[in-house]
Amino acid sequence: MALIDTGVQAPTRRELLHAIGVMGGASLLYQAMESMGHAAESQFKGPPNLQGARPGASVLVLGAGLAGMLAAIELRKAGYKVEILEYNNRPGGRNWSLYGGDTYTELGGAVQQVGFAKGNYLNPGAWRIPYHHRTILHYCKAFGVALEPFMQLNHQALVHNSKAFGGKPQRYRELAADWDGNVAELLAKAIDNKGLDSELRAEDRDRLKEALRDWGLLDKNMRYSKGLRSSRRRGYDRPLGGGVDAEPIASTPFAFGDLLDARIGGIVAQHMENQHQTTMFQPVGGMGMIGKAFGKQVEGLIRYGAKVTKIDQSGGAVTATYTDIASGETRTAKADYCVCTIPLGILSQIEVDASPGLLAAIAAVPYSNSVKVGLEMKTRFWEDDEAIYGGISYTDQPIAQISYPSGGLHSAGPGVILGAYTFGPASYKFAGMAPEERVRTALEMGAVFHPGRYKEQFSNGVAVAWSRVPFTLGCCAQWNEATRKEHYQTLCAVDDRIVLAGEHASYVGCWMEGALLSSLDAITRLHTRALEA
Amino acid sequence: MALIDTGVQAPTRRELLHAIGVMGGASLLYQAMESMGHAAESQFKGPPNLQGARPGASVLVLGAGLAGMLAAIELRKAGYKVEILEYNNRPGGRNWSLYGGDTYTELGGAVQQVGFAKGNYLNPGAWRIPYHHRTILHYCKAFGVALEPFMQLNHQALVHNSKAFGGKPQRYRELAADWDGNVAELLAKAIDNKGLDSELRAEDRDRLKEALRDWGLLDKNMRYSKGLRSSRRRGYDRPLGGGVDAEPIASTPFAFGDLLDARIGGIVAQHMENQHQTTMFQPVGGMGMIGKAFGKQVEGLIRYGAKVTKIDQSGGAVTATYTDIASGETRTAKADYCVCTIPLGILSQIEVDASPGLLAAIAAVPYSNSVKVGLEMKTRFWEDDEAIYGGISYTDQPIAQISYPSGGLHSAGPGVILGAYTFGPASYKFAGMAPEERVRTALEMGAVFHPGRYKEQFSNGVAVAWSRVPFTLGCCAQWNEATRKEHYQTLCAVDDRIVLAGEHASYVGCWMEGALLSSLDAITRLHTRALEA
Repeated sequence: MALIDTGVQAPTRRELLHAIGVMGGASLLYQAMESMGHAAESQFKGPPNLQGARPGASVLVLGAGLAGMLAAIELRKAGYKVEILEYNNRPGGRNWSLYGGDTYTELGGAVQQVGFAKGNYLNPGAWRIPYHHRTILHYCKAFGVALEPFMQLNHQALVHNSKAFGGKPQRYRELAADWDGNVAELLAKAIDNKGLDSELRAEDRDRLKEALRDWGLLDKNMRYSKGLRSSRRRGYDRPLGGGVDAEPIASTPFAFGDLLDARIGGIVAQHMENQHQTTMFQPVGGMGMIGKAFGKQVEGLIRYGAKVTKIDQSGGAVTATYTDIASGETRTAKADYCVCTIPLGILSQIEVDASPGLLAAIAAVPYSNSVKVGLEMKTRFWEDDEAIYGGISYTDQPIAQISYPSGGLHSAGPGVILGAYTFGPASYKFAGMAPEERVRTALEMGAVFHPGRYKEQFSNGVAVAWSRVPFTLGCCAQWNEATRKEHYQTLCAVDDRIVLAGEHASYVGCWMEGALLSSLDAITRLHTRALEA
Repeated sequence: MALIDTGVQAPTRRELLHAIGVMGGASLLYQAMESMGHAAESQFKGPPNLQGARPGASVLVLGAGLAGMLAAIELRKAGYKVEILEYNNRPGGRNWSLYGGDTYTELGGAVQQVGFAKGNYLNPGAWRIPYHHRTILHYCKAFGVALEPFMQLNHQALVHNSKAFGGKPQRYRELAADWDGNVAELLAKAIDNKGLDSELRAEDRDRLKEALRDWGLLDKNMRYSKGLRSSRRRGYDRPLGGGVDAEPIASTPFAFGDLLDARIGGIVAQHMENQHQTTMFQPVGGMGMIGKAFGKQVEGLIRYGAKVTKIDQSGGAVTATYTDIASGETRTAKADYCVCTIPLGILSQIEVDASPGLLAAIAAVPYSNSVKVGLEMKTRFWEDDEAIYGGISYTDQPIAQISYPSGGLHSAGPGVILGAYTFGPASYKFAGMAPEERVRTALEMGAVFHPGRYKEQFSNGVAVAWSRVPFTLGCCAQWNEATRKEHYQTLCAVDDRIVLAGEHASYVGCWMEGALLSSLDAITRLHTRALEA
């Protein structure tokens, strides 16, 4: 359409690509994007244009997370009658914020009353959106979710390694500056020592040295040395001032061995990852605003408090049996087709009428665990005292990191620090503690960064261990090369009348983007299946 | 006071430091900060506590930029009668935003009517605030100026060098990733080639290689190679997707020679500079919001449209002669003391009654020039089409860079790109053009980044050449080592009844922070002088 549009407005690049995509499919689209000057940053090609559902055709969606709700939105647009069953009493699933006044009961029965001040929150699940996650960004705009920058890298934040600097945290800016400076100096020395004569032409060796001097802030002797030049990056002992006593005093770079001890290279690398690059976003008011906005789109379609116990697809229809949690009654919901977004750890415990291949795939993928702890502090002392605005301080302790809130930057009043975001074995250790012990432990460990203030300013906390979250029993699907090879395509394939969707049916595991891309792909194939039936 | 406070609340770190500062002066303060765990990030020690001005004592402030207004605010608090003379009809000086509907007349008479849509603006002068500029941040909070993050580094933005890649701009993320990867690989090779045997112990060589593998995303053969590992940082040819066709396709790293051509090392270095590190800020609604907020604090004290022509300090008072621009009349203002914040390029053209040393200092410091061009685009195509949210694209053309707006991220509607921020000789070339030609030239050069969209989406523009700005005749004071040595202390010293303040009287040249720090230092010394008189 856009290609032959005779109106005054030229088609946008996206319209053009969409037209090519509609006409020629994905591979032609990809060729076109290549030839238009840059490769894809996302597999999102705009919302699908599903049309012409058979009259009266219906789809049952299991799960009102983002994947399920998006499936419902787009299938309804295509003409299907849609119903959603959801275990929780809210939309969003792992898109979820805990606010003051909320109550959360985990598996095992521990109940937490969230005591945060008005406006403060913890995002137990998803908490940030990379710029290249075009699907989630598209629907945020479409559904009116206001976004603000999420600060990932903060040069002023701290790095703590118990084996470096006598266990004293150091500023990221100092460590990162000294890493670059030392690497530059060593490489320049190696060139002088003829260590790269076999690798580089003489001309490129000279150009490289010149570039290293710029990049590493080396001095005229090609050394990374104490001085105003290196302080320009790592910070000063006394910074530039105004008036009579304004001259700066240079800071002293760390010894190279200490940098290796601190493993700063790996932390620098983390910030450079595609999924952590600038610009990242978060919704204003908590990640859960996205789930709420999606929920508004499907208002009236969701049956909350419905715990699915069985999925049958015999007799030319899909029938889900569920427990209505409020009444305890057993009920059923029936439709021609089913989009099932129930996390695999839950789904593997339900009686599902599917091919042996799909059942094997559902059973094959373990889930990661993770624990997040929110610590509300009475004041934003990290901003006021230390000029840390958002970003992450890293530690080799089990809490792994603490993250300062990116919302309400430079404002007054209490703020919620993400006091732990555990991975691996530490997560199971934390999950084994009572919630208040998790909070206490996180407070104890995080205090290493702000010894004078952390415990003193603490007001209240909440801790979510994903292995104990009733609606997922884990964090995200953990694929490996072997399981991908054996089970992934089967997991994604339409199984007669049922198709699975969610982050587990994607390569963008553990991200909202994966859930949405999976959903769009699943419903497109289900729609084709429904039209062919 | 805070030290012997017996109340329930312990003194904050800042209160403690303030108390130490008051009692023991700067060097004791500095020692205390060192011993409290980290060196200063700023020379700001909190607002000054000037008290006890002699009854009836008065101060005339010349210039209602930030330095002048802060002087007025704090001196009035100390008990002085204060009056401010200002050339412009607005407060703020180089803290200034141009909005739609504004008219700007430059030296030479060219008039520009700003045509931006409501809410859009260009900051011709100051445009960003580093986290460690504690003075400006303090007063923003004190005066209720809302801040939002300013995105400096954007991995998705572009780097253009006419001598690299056939003049085709490339993504920062690709260049930066390949730089690190190549540097890591080369350094690892150099170690293997025994090029660092004399520099590092065997044990550290092994640890370094391990660190390089992490940092540079090297493969198991210690090569920076095409694959999913390097794509994790530089981006994919086809990114991770969802559903059946979701497998990523790796991108191909650039040749090392191309990276050297593109001079990427220097651009990476820029982002690491102390003054460009995360987290940076800008006021919501334009930098000029700060000038307006300061202006509100001194409402009624400023005489606008007053062009100072002479400063006299004979007869135990300071008398400034000025032209009332509206009426053309010559008038005088008189006070016991004077804080003069008039930029040196203007001040050197005025008859000033001061010591020969101060007059020599005023005449000794040249001003830099710079041109900024604001280009309003009909849509935010850089966000919609290319996922660039804020940040800077660099070029070796005279415009030097284009910067995408950090305000209104991910919103609809028109946006203003900073289409040129020139330095050095390019600035004089641009200043020599008529404003509309500057806009046209900026549009032409910036189109290299977004060839399909830039000119097509352009709506209107405005161009400010600082050498033609009537109230400064330049951008900022350009000190060098020789002038600092010869003139700086004299420039800052109280000259009988007059003291100078502004970014020119600081080491934080060209930043609002320098103007404020200079002002606080100047009025503290002037107050001492006044009490001793």
